[in-house]
Amino acid sequence: MKALVTGGAGFIGSTLTDRLLADGHEVVVYDNFSTGRALFLAQARRHAGFHLVRGDTLDDDALRAAMRGCDIVFHLAANADVRYGTLHPRKDFEQNTVATFNVLEAMRDTGVRRIVFASTGSIYGEPRVFPTPEDAPFPVQTSLYGASKLACEGLIEAYCEGYGIQGYIFRLVSILGERYTHGHVFDFYKALRCDCTRLRVLGDGHQRKSYLYVHDCIEGMLCALARAQERINIFNLGRDDYCEVNDSVRWICEALGVQPELEYTGGPRGWVGDSPFIFLDCRKIRQLGWTPQVSIREGVLRTLAYLQAHAELLEERA
Amino acid sequence: MKALVTGGAGFIGSTLTDRLLADGHEVVVYDNFSTGRALFLAQARRHAGFHLVRGDTLDDDALRAAMRGCDIVFHLAANADVRYGTLHPRKDFEQNTVATFNVLEAMRDTGVRRIVFASTGSIYGEPRVFPTPEDAPFPVQTSLYGASKLACEGLIEAYCEGYGIQGYIFRLVSILGERYTHGHVFDFYKALRCDCTRLRVLGDGHQRKSYLYVHDCIEGMLCALARAQERINIFNLGRDDYCEVNDSVRWICEALGVQPELEYTGGPRGWVGDSPFIFLDCRKIRQLGWTPQVSIREGVLRTLAYLQAHAELLEERA
Repeated sequence: MKALVTGGAGFIGSTLTDRLLADGHEVVVYDNFSTGRALFLAQARRHAGFHLVRGDTLDDDALRAAMRGCDIVFHLAANADVRYGTLHPRKDFEQNTVATFNVLEAMRDTGVRRIVFASTGSIYGEPRVFPTPEDAPFPVQTSLYGASKLACEGLIEAYCEGYGIQGYIFRLVSILGERYTHGHVFDFYKALRCDCTRLRVLGDGHQRKSYLYVHDCIEGMLCALARAQERINIFNLGRDDYCEVNDSVRWICEALGVQPELEYTGGPRGWVGDSPFIFLDCRKIRQLGWTPQVSIREGVLRTLAYLQAHAELLEERA
Repeated sequence: MKALVTGGAGFIGSTLTDRLLADGHEVVVYDNFSTGRALFLAQARRHAGFHLVRGDTLDDDALRAAMRGCDIVFHLAANADVRYGTLHPRKDFEQNTVATFNVLEAMRDTGVRRIVFASTGSIYGEPRVFPTPEDAPFPVQTSLYGASKLACEGLIEAYCEGYGIQGYIFRLVSILGERYTHGHVFDFYKALRCDCTRLRVLGDGHQRKSYLYVHDCIEGMLCALARAQERINIFNLGRDDYCEVNDSVRWICEALGVQPELEYTGGPRGWVGDSPFIFLDCRKIRQLGWTPQVSIREGVLRTLAYLQAHAELLEERA
């Protein structure tokens, strides 16, 4: 098949691109390189089936041109920066919600009939049920990021219903692994490189989060794509366990051989809209036969090792 | 207080405007008159506290200017045409979702701290629980209209959380009453005026829907505004009963003294995305002391009587 991967130069997108190419598919990467990196496409470039289009998801015409002739869209391009949403609400709205509308309109125009969408566990807001299933009680949004992704989900569902498109929506926990470019492991490692004697931790350190290793994530998406054939297929994608921020801090510090004094900013949340407990019920996708292979601890350590080997990634985001 | 009412020249908006003015408040009606009508503001114009701004919710600057100095926004402007959503998906997206983003951004700019939003029972898609409570299982969107309104709800919630705004979200059933300008009563009456011997009914006529009379709706909104003081207040707003489309057809035909042959288009849904059963659990708002006064049948008959007295409304939408 020929796939368009929006955000295909990003963390998850480039890993997916490598996998699709390795499986013998043709891939058009569509990326504006705002956070995507040419470095991540080094392996993909070697394949004859690889195409790169430098474009923005807000550019309707370029998007439509790139999509023509594709069989499926993996829509991964997004503003993934949950924490700073309130500083620039337009960013989540435009880069996530408006962009997804543009992708769907381009699909309608070009006749592409399948879409895979990277949504987020953040759309559950602060859930009341743990682990949180796909049909949890109607959530209240607590972050602009979650709200923008929920809007995308609703649009995709309505387009599936209205135009006979087939949709795959994955509600992801935080993803870890090689090519990871933002999040707590990034922040902690960067801070400890500057000063290994102290570490500022947002919140009280007891926030509980589940994490998933990037290759497990992609395996889950492809498994659902092969085995689930409803018009609208919605899956949580995470692990059956979680850790505290404090656990992750300990693993990172042990791996680096440092013993910083921990300074907690306090409170149960790291920032406004941070959900103090993210733990998704993933039975639905596990029933399709998917099982994650890499533990949270191992995921954190591989992420850290990757960042240690690619210090330039830390510099660029200064 | 001074209120901005977007869509203030529309069916619900103008009725709300009259009520707010009668209660001694100042009202700025903001309307682009795409479906709003000057006729509906005849009564409002007599009040000193009435202001009219002809503007579009997609015009950021005009919106911000109109909002300045207001204490509260009643955001009722919307594309309310559920049925034709798939013909022009951009309409729901821009006039509902983008417009609501603009309203929220204008509130942030001008320091307005309260928003009342007219959402819809359509956001429950095709619910599995009846009557459907506010915390029903996470719904799947079946219409572009529902999806666009869900996106608005999420945005409002995230703005409340992020910027300390207070929000009131009302998930309405279909509203009936004077100044009603679209919906099944409108369609049936218009068709019967042309040919009273036959009537085309979308679906199988067994679609079950709840309806609420417009003054009951406004009383419910104002009741919640006075008595509910959470940061985010979400209420279903409907009646504790419902009728079949066939019931409504019978009431209308009896009132008009006609006996048309009924031609059903067939199937459980009137159109793609039509929900065959809309029946909201309204215990939450009823616990605040609100009780609807007008039955569904009486609401249908008052709507019909209004349309009979204002035949020009039928002509204009030809």
